[in-house]
Amino acid sequence: MKELLAYFDGELPGINAFLEEEARKLNGLVSDVALHILGSGGKRIRPMLTILTARALGYDRDDYLPMACALELLHSATLLHDDYLDDADMRRGSRAAHLVFGRSETILAGDALLALANEMGARYGKARLSAVLAKGIMDTAAGEIEEIGFSRNPALDRETYMDIIIGKTARLIETACRCGAVLATDDAAMEEAAAEYGLNLGIAFQLVDDALDYVSPSSETGKPEGGDLKEGKVTLPLILLMEQADEVAAEELLDALRERRLSAEQCTDIVTQVRDGGYADRTRDEAAAYVQKAKDALGPFPDCPELTVLRQAAEYVLTRTK
Amino acid sequence: MKELLAYFDGELPGINAFLEEEARKLNGLVSDVALHILGSGGKRIRPMLTILTARALGYDRDDYLPMACALELLHSATLLHDDYLDDADMRRGSRAAHLVFGRSETILAGDALLALANEMGARYGKARLSAVLAKGIMDTAAGEIEEIGFSRNPALDRETYMDIIIGKTARLIETACRCGAVLATDDAAMEEAAAEYGLNLGIAFQLVDDALDYVSPSSETGKPEGGDLKEGKVTLPLILLMEQADEVAAEELLDALRERRLSAEQCTDIVTQVRDGGYADRTRDEAAAYVQKAKDALGPFPDCPELTVLRQAAEYVLTRTK
Repeated sequence: MKELLAYFDGELPGINAFLEEEARKLNGLVSDVALHILGSGGKRIRPMLTILTARALGYDRDDYLPMACALELLHSATLLHDDYLDDADMRRGSRAAHLVFGRSETILAGDALLALANEMGARYGKARLSAVLAKGIMDTAAGEIEEIGFSRNPALDRETYMDIIIGKTARLIETACRCGAVLATDDAAMEEAAAEYGLNLGIAFQLVDDALDYVSPSSETGKPEGGDLKEGKVTLPLILLMEQADEVAAEELLDALRERRLSAEQCTDIVTQVRDGGYADRTRDEAAAYVQKAKDALGPFPDCPELTVLRQAAEYVLTRTK
Repeated sequence: MKELLAYFDGELPGINAFLEEEARKLNGLVSDVALHILGSGGKRIRPMLTILTARALGYDRDDYLPMACALELLHSATLLHDDYLDDADMRRGSRAAHLVFGRSETILAGDALLALANEMGARYGKARLSAVLAKGIMDTAAGEIEEIGFSRNPALDRETYMDIIIGKTARLIETACRCGAVLATDDAAMEEAAAEYGLNLGIAFQLVDDALDYVSPSSETGKPEGGDLKEGKVTLPLILLMEQADEVAAEELLDALRERRLSAEQCTDIVTQVRDGGYADRTRDEAAAYVQKAKDALGPFPDCPELTVLRQAAEYVLTRTK
């Protein structure tokens, strides 16, 4: 992981300074909200992937920050709207923006960040870039909506679950990689390879997130333990557990989730069953298969330092503990 | 106005069918919200202006609907978020979407329409088009934010008022015209002429709207009479009235607006003063000057049926009563 860490160390200051600069330019009503969400310790995985993909495919100009950071702004915009609509209290260990700054400020900051992300992508005067970004924004909005629909009417259904994690997470990471490729080259096969890497990496990323939700102490993640279950969210560890349970128990659980009447004791009991039954580990195993697919997708990439880092980034997704 | 009406009659069915088709394709959670706001009788001025500008500048392909309708979707997205954040009860004589469909549905429908608008503009594979649209979205989001900031801390200041009506209304109408021009031609001077027409038309449009708010019966506008004042909004008719009042009265009014403690009687009294003092009419006079600027901007346009209609559209803005 040495090369990955060195790359992050090299790029992070530039990314963070650029994000802060753009957030400060926004109207005073929303710039503090933008600074709050952007300053709350995101991993900057999306900008890093755009930069790595662009560099790996030969982009040597130094004007990549608007494109790379557009994806982080878009991600932050969805967090602001999601946390407000979920009535979330916390985000990355800090109070959620809508509780600090208010409803209007938070909704409008999300709108502004979405608009700004889009505008930053348009700065390159490249139609394909705008088209990829537009589709990424569209997919992400659709994924957000699908997830909220699913949380109101949950099912223990792997296919729907996969659709949702692709929509809410993987498409945006795919878009980050696709944008990097389009910045560097007009080669459609290379763009598809980058997209395939990003999509599979994104799926793995969310699978690991959903596994960590059951096994990682809240002191590390900054989120409450078993938080997904408490919020009524069905994720793969729970689906795997319920595949082993009898039908009546599964139906009862679904009813309880739908009606939001799962007690704290029931939650703790299910979290324990998921852990002890090894269903979080099995979710990680699934993630490992997608990480392998992501690495395989890099086949057509030229041999270069960034290729090593992209492979390490895929490994990192699997080994992270928060 | 014969040609204008004929043009609307010719294009409206296509615009409405296309908008409905796109709204129906959205996720079930938000498509009803989109159909509600799109079906609530908007005038489709933005799509019409895109079509007219494109046609006037020689665009003869029949694939103009996504671009034209993108502007209407963007406009609808801002209405959804605005009405929710304003706690508005009514929109165009119907119940506001958030009261019919709920908070999450309305916020997310706004996000989806914004994303869709952007995606529709990207369908043409033309970088300049995406850049113009991206800037239009950015300006509109900024204008929305500025207006809400202003409503919390109102001033009786013409310059700020002009900034706000440009941001919240005129930039989007400018964008509609600019998009039509870019669709048709790479001639930057023609794009600027179209933009100048749209910007001035948009300013006039909002000035008339703000005048109508004081003089048009609510049965015609579908909005409560003197609604802006009741919502604490400072518009030009009020600024003109207060320019004649003494400073103490003006300060008292501002304080009352800021603290939302204007009584129904005070509102009625001010509305009467605005009417009887002719301040709504003077606002219309200002609008007439912008209409003239809009018509003048059409100078470089080639002589064609659409030029006649664009001129009539400018006149219509001035004569409308709702």
